[in-house]
Amino acid sequence: MKKEEITPGQQTITRAPLTGSRKIYVQGKIHDIKVAMREIVLSDTKMNGKSEVNIPVTVYDTSGPYTDPNAAIDLKSGLERLREGWILGRGDVEQLPEFSSEYCRQRMADKNLDSLRFEHIRKPLKAKPGANVSQMHYAKLGTITQEMEYIAIRENQRIDEYNELLAQNKRGQLGHQHAGMNFGANTPKSHITAEFVRSEVALGRAIIPNNINHPESEPMIIGRNFLVKINTNIGNSAVSSSIEEEVEKAVWSCRWGGDTLMDLSTGKNIHETREWIIRNCPVPVGTVPIYQALEKVNGKAEDLTWEIFRDTLIEQAEQGVDYFTIHAGVRLKYIPLTAKRVTGIVSRGGSIMAKWCLAHHKENFLYTHFEEICDIMKAYDVAFSLGDGLRPGSIADANDEAQFGELETLGELTKIAWKHDIQTMIEGPGHVPMHMIKENMDKQLKECQEAPFYTLGPLTTDIAPGYDHITSAIGAAMIGWFGTAMLCYVTPKEHLGLPNKKDVKDGVMAYKIAAHAADLAKGHPGAQYRDNALSKARFEFRWEDQFNLSLDPDTAREYHDETLPADGAKIAHFCSMCGPHFCSMKITQDVRDYADRIGMEEDEALRLGLEEKAKEFKDAGAEIYL
Amino acid sequence: MKKEEITPGQQTITRAPLTGSRKIYVQGKIHDIKVAMREIVLSDTKMNGKSEVNIPVTVYDTSGPYTDPNAAIDLKSGLERLREGWILGRGDVEQLPEFSSEYCRQRMADKNLDSLRFEHIRKPLKAKPGANVSQMHYAKLGTITQEMEYIAIRENQRIDEYNELLAQNKRGQLGHQHAGMNFGANTPKSHITAEFVRSEVALGRAIIPNNINHPESEPMIIGRNFLVKINTNIGNSAVSSSIEEEVEKAVWSCRWGGDTLMDLSTGKNIHETREWIIRNCPVPVGTVPIYQALEKVNGKAEDLTWEIFRDTLIEQAEQGVDYFTIHAGVRLKYIPLTAKRVTGIVSRGGSIMAKWCLAHHKENFLYTHFEEICDIMKAYDVAFSLGDGLRPGSIADANDEAQFGELETLGELTKIAWKHDIQTMIEGPGHVPMHMIKENMDKQLKECQEAPFYTLGPLTTDIAPGYDHITSAIGAAMIGWFGTAMLCYVTPKEHLGLPNKKDVKDGVMAYKIAAHAADLAKGHPGAQYRDNALSKARFEFRWEDQFNLSLDPDTAREYHDETLPADGAKIAHFCSMCGPHFCSMKITQDVRDYADRIGMEEDEALRLGLEEKAKEFKDAGAEIYL
Repeated sequence: MKKEEITPGQQTITRAPLTGSRKIYVQGKIHDIKVAMREIVLSDTKMNGKSEVNIPVTVYDTSGPYTDPNAAIDLKSGLERLREGWILGRGDVEQLPEFSSEYCRQRMADKNLDSLRFEHIRKPLKAKPGANVSQMHYAKLGTITQEMEYIAIRENQRIDEYNELLAQNKRGQLGHQHAGMNFGANTPKSHITAEFVRSEVALGRAIIPNNINHPESEPMIIGRNFLVKINTNIGNSAVSSSIEEEVEKAVWSCRWGGDTLMDLSTGKNIHETREWIIRNCPVPVGTVPIYQALEKVNGKAEDLTWEIFRDTLIEQAEQGVDYFTIHAGVRLKYIPLTAKRVTGIVSRGGSIMAKWCLAHHKENFLYTHFEEICDIMKAYDVAFSLGDGLRPGSIADANDEAQFGELETLGELTKIAWKHDIQTMIEGPGHVPMHMIKENMDKQLKECQEAPFYTLGPLTTDIAPGYDHITSAIGAAMIGWFGTAMLCYVTPKEHLGLPNKKDVKDGVMAYKIAAHAADLAKGHPGAQYRDNALSKARFEFRWEDQFNLSLDPDTAREYHDETLPADGAKIAHFCSMCGPHFCSMKITQDVRDYADRIGMEEDEALRLGLEEKAKEFKDAGAEIYL
Repeated sequence: MKKEEITPGQQTITRAPLTGSRKIYVQGKIHDIKVAMREIVLSDTKMNGKSEVNIPVTVYDTSGPYTDPNAAIDLKSGLERLREGWILGRGDVEQLPEFSSEYCRQRMADKNLDSLRFEHIRKPLKAKPGANVSQMHYAKLGTITQEMEYIAIRENQRIDEYNELLAQNKRGQLGHQHAGMNFGANTPKSHITAEFVRSEVALGRAIIPNNINHPESEPMIIGRNFLVKINTNIGNSAVSSSIEEEVEKAVWSCRWGGDTLMDLSTGKNIHETREWIIRNCPVPVGTVPIYQALEKVNGKAEDLTWEIFRDTLIEQAEQGVDYFTIHAGVRLKYIPLTAKRVTGIVSRGGSIMAKWCLAHHKENFLYTHFEEICDIMKAYDVAFSLGDGLRPGSIADANDEAQFGELETLGELTKIAWKHDIQTMIEGPGHVPMHMIKENMDKQLKECQEAPFYTLGPLTTDIAPGYDHITSAIGAAMIGWFGTAMLCYVTPKEHLGLPNKKDVKDGVMAYKIAAHAADLAKGHPGAQYRDNALSKARFEFRWEDQFNLSLDPDTAREYHDETLPADGAKIAHFCSMCGPHFCSMKITQDVRDYADRIGMEEDEALRLGLEEKAKEFKDAGAEIYL
């Protein structure tokens, strides 16, 4: 089953822009930065012989330079080092003469690995002695970094400019439909300033995962007062996948909207695979370092030591991993609480630590060495993702004492991390039925002092393997609404196998939906304008605009074309569901035209009520339809 | 594009039982009835040289006789007429010498239609003059019908028997895992009696859609104190599909869990297509009669008349349609309220009636003739599904005054329907963001006096055409939890085209998930036992049991086999995600075994706390792992 390792070639990477979209770059005001976004260009509305302009819609873009036809991409050299100048400009880092990790140096020296090694490896950056290079540290000092301004601009998605243009298109000019778009109380307003970003990071309510050794990444923020983010998982295992496949999956997941990427590889060549991924990844990369540490002791959890783990942390920090999942909350006292469960411990990291704790009759070494971990992380600005090793693996185990006990410990650890100015988020479940979801969110906010919550789903039922992107999108949307900052995607292969490219996309789509539904429910200003623009396009039979405004234009177009493939159908004022004589949208347009022709004001109609209006209609004696 | 009409042949129908399942029939106690269910047989748990029995799991089964290998199926004759004896036995119906609908008689006399006509059409049944044959009428009289007892048994899914067997398998006999299954407060208890069914129907809180002319259907109930149901839509249009395809889609949707089926055909030969579907459909069939009425006036809404509509109602009632969507709430006074919307009127029925109202400057004839409609429906026991013709078609239009105005009118109409003992449910939206969903449910319960709510989704965002089964499953799960009794499925083709067989299944699966997640959140006794059984199978690496207990065994198995196709892998104690040395579930079993060997009681561990326990571990000096 195991394929030969293959390193990435250009031909494996998906590069074309999404249909109807072009990359734009918005200039910063505080710093000299250019923030990448995606602009969706729309066609004019043509109705009753009139033509109306539709303002282009700008959306948040996670795809990186890959979708910019002007960007030179060479996987063998890695992406442009966007943040390098910002990092060096602060004067608090130094380039090391050699990698600090012994394991890393061994791998570098191994000639047998030359064929699969990324070629242009640079020596790592590290904070100067005594310095702390975390964004939280800068934020607490009152500094607005380039990263913070980038994020503020990025989160706003040019809503202010959009509104400005909308206002310029006066009622008469745009006609009825446009004027009538009832944004109402939901009129999008930009409200995110660079100072607000700084403040949220300083308070610990949001994190900006960006290791100084991953300057290729475009800054993004995880916090509940920002757009809800999604994480995607990739990674090979002992029985599956190659480096080439993993890099393409990474680029692919960013293309469709993955905000961060976790490399969960557990097979061979983890170190080399990760180098390829990080160098070519435009979004922050997270890992679970204990997975690799376990490989180093040949899969025997009891052989793990703090020293091996420590070397792994440094190895990965110097490669550029942006956040680490650390299962420091799996304390010895909680482990027996899982024995009664239907599904015991299902987190891989959690079960490794549980096995270690029981084998040695000792407290979890991640817990006892937590402050030393902090010292490593602040030298590279690696963020914590405090792992929920005791998360429930079934509905029956949700919200039990093991899970909630661990969560309390994660709250304690958050305080320690913050003492070191380490950015910290908290991982959450798992399998939780709908009525128990809010309790999770509320308890997390309370126990962890509002540190961002990062949840896997939750899955709202156990009975649908093969469809767990859906069982979990339900829970994810809800917990996102309640305050979770980032949703870890689940693919249709959950519980069954490793995701292929199609699964990755299906997982991303389900989670983009969940995140966006949550943004809408939270009233995020950067949410509803896209729904409104798409619905207007749909209503006006601007098929191509509807496709291009959607999360996945390719699939929308393909599904439409299955029934009505002709090009003419995409400008037709009807759809395949009802046929030409029977379209409710067409009929509504007739209703609207009627209202226009009669010159009836809707407000007036309301005031007069039915009786008067009916009389008025009759008096007018108008024959409206042919 | 239009294919030739093809009538169904045997080879088109999917018949095999789901894997691992067999059909069982449970005998009634009040009546001599046999209630069909699906039993999933499980393998033994084999661990540490011991073998434990796993009790078979009985699940609600909508697939009808098709999945019973002993049932003789002949599509040309139609299904066995299960309820005929019950209906005739009540002595309140008579067989008519001829069909009452003029249109029906014309179609029957048309020789050109012989080739596509169902062959064994029987003369219709109708209530004797003055009689009312609705289940609500019987319920109010205090009669427990065969249908009611059937439903009570069906809803309970033999939970009592399951618990009995579970209790018999004593702790020692089944071993740790079984004893430890913490059903806890969720221990399933049967609570649905035939008398409870009767009472809910009498109060109008639940309906049993089953036309006396559709005796082939297996009784089912729609009400918020029962399992949440799902409806599937099929039907051809002017540009697509054949009779054969539609019948197979009907059987297919029942196979995967569709509780009712709406035939929304708008193309040619609607009458003949419907006959084939009803005669072969084991679940209640609903329609929107105005669609066919519109076809009769060549698609010109303004040419519709009460007389044409009335004849259509009778035509369909005598064929056996179990519920009618009637858009009687689209009153003239609400129509102008939609002109300001982003997406106006998107309900087909709603826009037809709006067009008619404006063309004639008259109140909706469905509203003005409502009592006459009731008189027709009670003679056949057709239930109302009061249509939400003004439902929002976009997030921007959710919960507006047009939508809520109509809902108030539907409440008035419910009272009138109940005066006639007509079973009634209320249709709901549409496109609604998460934070506005509960308001819909609460308002429906209040305005419509707790009549069952039957919602389309709602879709929680507009931006994902191609994935609207997911955008809407989120809203559906939530509104199901809040009290909606039946969820109308949405397929991936929503807004884009007509669903094919794959889309039907994808839509059904998303909605089975939503309905089950809602049942779990409501604490329905007939819900969590299946999650528990599946999770136990998953945890014990009983792969085949996991597949067979899932909503879609075929897909679960296929996904598993993509990575580990060998037969051996399905009995392997690991999975492709982690490989043989790295499985969290395997490690947890080690933890559990450890707890067993040490003889440690979890409760005791809790009492002693960490310090003592650690000391005890050390004193014991046990070497647990090899």
